[in-house]
Amino acid sequence: MSDRTRLTRLKERGVDDRGELLDFLAEQFVAHLAVDAGGYPVALPVAYALDREGDQLYVHGSVGAGWLRISPGASVCVTVTAVDGLVLARSGFHHSMNYRCAVVIGEARLVESEEERARALDMVVDQVVPGRAATLRANTRKELAGTAVLAVPLAEASLKKRTGGVGDEPEDIEAGTWAGVLPLRVVAGEVETDPETSRPVPPDVAARAQQLRDQRGQ
Amino acid sequence: MSDRTRLTRLKERGVDDRGELLDFLAEQFVAHLAVDAGGYPVALPVAYALDREGDQLYVHGSVGAGWLRISPGASVCVTVTAVDGLVLARSGFHHSMNYRCAVVIGEARLVESEEERARALDMVVDQVVPGRAATLRANTRKELAGTAVLAVPLAEASLKKRTGGVGDEPEDIEAGTWAGVLPLRVVAGEVETDPETSRPVPPDVAARAQQLRDQRGQ
Repeated sequence: MSDRTRLTRLKERGVDDRGELLDFLAEQFVAHLAVDAGGYPVALPVAYALDREGDQLYVHGSVGAGWLRISPGASVCVTVTAVDGLVLARSGFHHSMNYRCAVVIGEARLVESEEERARALDMVVDQVVPGRAATLRANTRKELAGTAVLAVPLAEASLKKRTGGVGDEPEDIEAGTWAGVLPLRVVAGEVETDPETSRPVPPDVAARAQQLRDQRGQ
Repeated sequence: MSDRTRLTRLKERGVDDRGELLDFLAEQFVAHLAVDAGGYPVALPVAYALDREGDQLYVHGSVGAGWLRISPGASVCVTVTAVDGLVLARSGFHHSMNYRCAVVIGEARLVESEEERARALDMVVDQVVPGRAATLRANTRKELAGTAVLAVPLAEASLKKRTGGVGDEPEDIEAGTWAGVLPLRVVAGEVETDPETSRPVPPDVAARAQQLRDQRGQ
């Protein structure tokens, strides 16, 4: 954590446990990448991979995507958010959400090595469906040449979360207004196999689908 | 749409229908707000409200939140993303996601008027649970003074989406590899009524919970 990711308010929602931060980054698979697009910020959704060993995140995009052509050494922000519930308090002011949010700020390194890029892209596939990369053919050199990969160090990273029930004023509780929490979670539907294959759903995909059906919000 | 939100690639994923953009912004309730935090961008999740009449979005936060104290006239980016499915292609390269993503770039206006701020905060509550603001007491002046609201015009806004199945290379299809799509959606669990009230779940909350249980990804 650094000055840039240190929490300035509601510090009780900050999570100091580095393991919890990494577990959250391992569990999710979509981030918002914010870059300086030339005098104004732009945030776009990206697939990413957590590289625990390298203590970094990989994000990728087409080499044709303008927002990936950032200046060398420029700081970017990678934000990973899970919305776990709507906190429906007795006043508008105390309405909130239960959530987990990791914010990573750092200088993005454009991955030049073809070998590292190939490894990073496999990690992005495995972040979505663990084990799937090994079941696919390798990327071609043309595909690798057409894909830009950014590495963002995890040195400046923080996790913030809100869990639990409503936090209302005593007079609003006495007034008897209803309040509660509506839990939310992302769930998977049934796998839709492509009509051009007659093979069964592979075990890695079936396991991921099952896991995404079973998972509970925090 | 402007130069800043015009799509630079995969233009077939752009949606020109303004009504579809507005409907998407009306359906969702969490955005990522990206601001220039002083030489580097920061994106954080926020609740927001679509103000159709004013052709703008409202986002809010505590006056103590440093990232809301942006320079007057500075451009911000509000990104609203729904992940509708994992596209599990026959190669890593063609892996993708089905999604809808609205990007709004504009000069944020700090809402000075207490009346407009009160109206905006009610709209944020109603974006989460339609009809709920009218069932709550009004915000106190102290609460209004402690809340910063930004208005972001919808003049520069675009919607991009991907739907449908995999887009694989003919040789990968011939090779017989399995491929398919795993649909994802956000669903609500059971309402958790606060232990300090004995009232039943109000109709607006029950309706919203039901809607969030029934909704399908696109």
